[in-house]
Amino acid sequence: MKAPVLAVDMGGTKILAAIISDKYQVLAREYQPTLASEGPQAVIRRLLAAFDRLLSSQKMGPSELGAISLAIAGGMDTEKGLVTSSPNLPGWHDVPLRDMVGEHYGVPTLLVNDSSAAALGEYRLGAGKGTRNMVMLTVGTGIGGGIIIEGKLYTGSSGSAGEIGHMAIDVSGPKCKCGNIGCLEMLASGTAMAREAIRRIRDGQQSILIALVGGNIENITAREVGTAARNGDALAADVILEAATYLGIGLVNMVNIFNPEVIVIGGSVAKLGDLLLEPARQVVKERAFRISANLVRIVPAQLGDDAGVLGAAVFARQRGTK
Amino acid sequence: MKAPVLAVDMGGTKILAAIISDKYQVLAREYQPTLASEGPQAVIRRLLAAFDRLLSSQKMGPSELGAISLAIAGGMDTEKGLVTSSPNLPGWHDVPLRDMVGEHYGVPTLLVNDSSAAALGEYRLGAGKGTRNMVMLTVGTGIGGGIIIEGKLYTGSSGSAGEIGHMAIDVSGPKCKCGNIGCLEMLASGTAMAREAIRRIRDGQQSILIALVGGNIENITAREVGTAARNGDALAADVILEAATYLGIGLVNMVNIFNPEVIVIGGSVAKLGDLLLEPARQVVKERAFRISANLVRIVPAQLGDDAGVLGAAVFARQRGTK
Repeated sequence: MKAPVLAVDMGGTKILAAIISDKYQVLAREYQPTLASEGPQAVIRRLLAAFDRLLSSQKMGPSELGAISLAIAGGMDTEKGLVTSSPNLPGWHDVPLRDMVGEHYGVPTLLVNDSSAAALGEYRLGAGKGTRNMVMLTVGTGIGGGIIIEGKLYTGSSGSAGEIGHMAIDVSGPKCKCGNIGCLEMLASGTAMAREAIRRIRDGQQSILIALVGGNIENITAREVGTAARNGDALAADVILEAATYLGIGLVNMVNIFNPEVIVIGGSVAKLGDLLLEPARQVVKERAFRISANLVRIVPAQLGDDAGVLGAAVFARQRGTK
Repeated sequence: MKAPVLAVDMGGTKILAAIISDKYQVLAREYQPTLASEGPQAVIRRLLAAFDRLLSSQKMGPSELGAISLAIAGGMDTEKGLVTSSPNLPGWHDVPLRDMVGEHYGVPTLLVNDSSAAALGEYRLGAGKGTRNMVMLTVGTGIGGGIIIEGKLYTGSSGSAGEIGHMAIDVSGPKCKCGNIGCLEMLASGTAMAREAIRRIRDGQQSILIALVGGNIENITAREVGTAARNGDALAADVILEAATYLGIGLVNMVNIFNPEVIVIGGSVAKLGDLLLEPARQVVKERAFRISANLVRIVPAQLGDDAGVLGAAVFARQRGTK
């Protein structure tokens, strides 16, 4: 099919909607805040309004779309088209988003997890090009995952596979809001870094982080931790090293289980670059099975914010659209 | 192809070789000890002698075989046909077993990991029949794994995928001989159960296990722990519960990552049955993502000792033989 795809990447903080050509060019895009606290009704209204604006910016009607592809930060039942729950989208329980959007526009509509979509985008158009087996971790507020097996996105038996951030790596670790204990996300996400930096400062350790946030240490995020580390702050460097080591332990598990050619690290925290990736690579080298560790490349994502919408468009084209 | 397959399942303790028909009937089988400590040369000589005996028992020549399929307990490079290393087979380093056997008989020969083969066997002929996505854990001396994705055995980019037993679940756990720390195998295998039972007895705890092994507590294995637990021994019951809980934590990770329809538990320790499986299922119910936890069935393997050779035969037929 040649018709463009209307793709959306919706997280707990922001929505990116885009119209994407059959050559995977972004013809138009629109950012807006999710304002997730307003609940599903308001968010869906805002989503549809954004779609209308994008379509009219291209002087297109919905009938000219090949598909609508919705990449959503949440658990889903892809068979029924439901967003079943989402830690980042309060109030979303079994929301039939696929059919609500599809019936509104009369266009074939697909639902996919946002991290799975990003993985598919990086696989086809970014850091995973030319491989067959790839794992992607999206490290931001949380840690999402996406799995490519023999060239295809693997979404599991009911569309819920790839929750790599909710793999337990520390049986004695902190309880996660997902219900599990010692999840990778609790130890290596941006949230984990910020929490650990704040804890250490409250414990009396010195850091330029305190000045960076004007004394309001609750405002520390992974971004400030990165800035402080690059400016020689020992506390920040140590917090990143600790999170990177946990990330590396998660990657060892991925290497031993999937024996992939490439692991792609995306998400806002991945902007730390080698500060994060080098210690993680070192852990893989030390602890993973030799053959698999020698094979795998651990690389940063290439598509930036567009990975999700591009991957959603790839997903729509693979699953068949008009 | 209709010709039978000569299949072998070789672990650190025993070898099972069998001739298997195109209908997956075992036409002949032979068990023998691996005697792994004698090193690869002696083991391979014994393997070839067993093959010769099996063939002559069926009055067959090698040219009547469709394939030889070797399921081996070790890491491998399937492309090159090497057994790269094995914790259970001392001295095996980059042994070109596939070509050694294939050239000896002039028959197409394949190499596959033993746990992967068992998974494929259970998938096609046992507890996984009728599903699309399945994970198998073989819980014995160690913990092996096998992964079925969309109906096909997944072996990774160089044939080393599926090392589920070497997934770290406890960052502060014991060091494993694989090089990783806090591996599932170190906490939930038969070896782990025996070690923990011995530790507790040395600590002064009472148990009928001491009498069961005539006072030589070094002789305790998971089998005795199971016997003691079924006879009401509190220490043994507690050791099994602890291992089963660790197993459950590993299963939560598998459920969150793979969202499979079924997880099959095989291996000698799985003979503990619901003593092992019920607490593990409970952990999955409490900690895994709801949709995935509701979907998955956690069931015992059905093929017993034949899973590996049957799976090796399935593997040969799938990969193309004459």
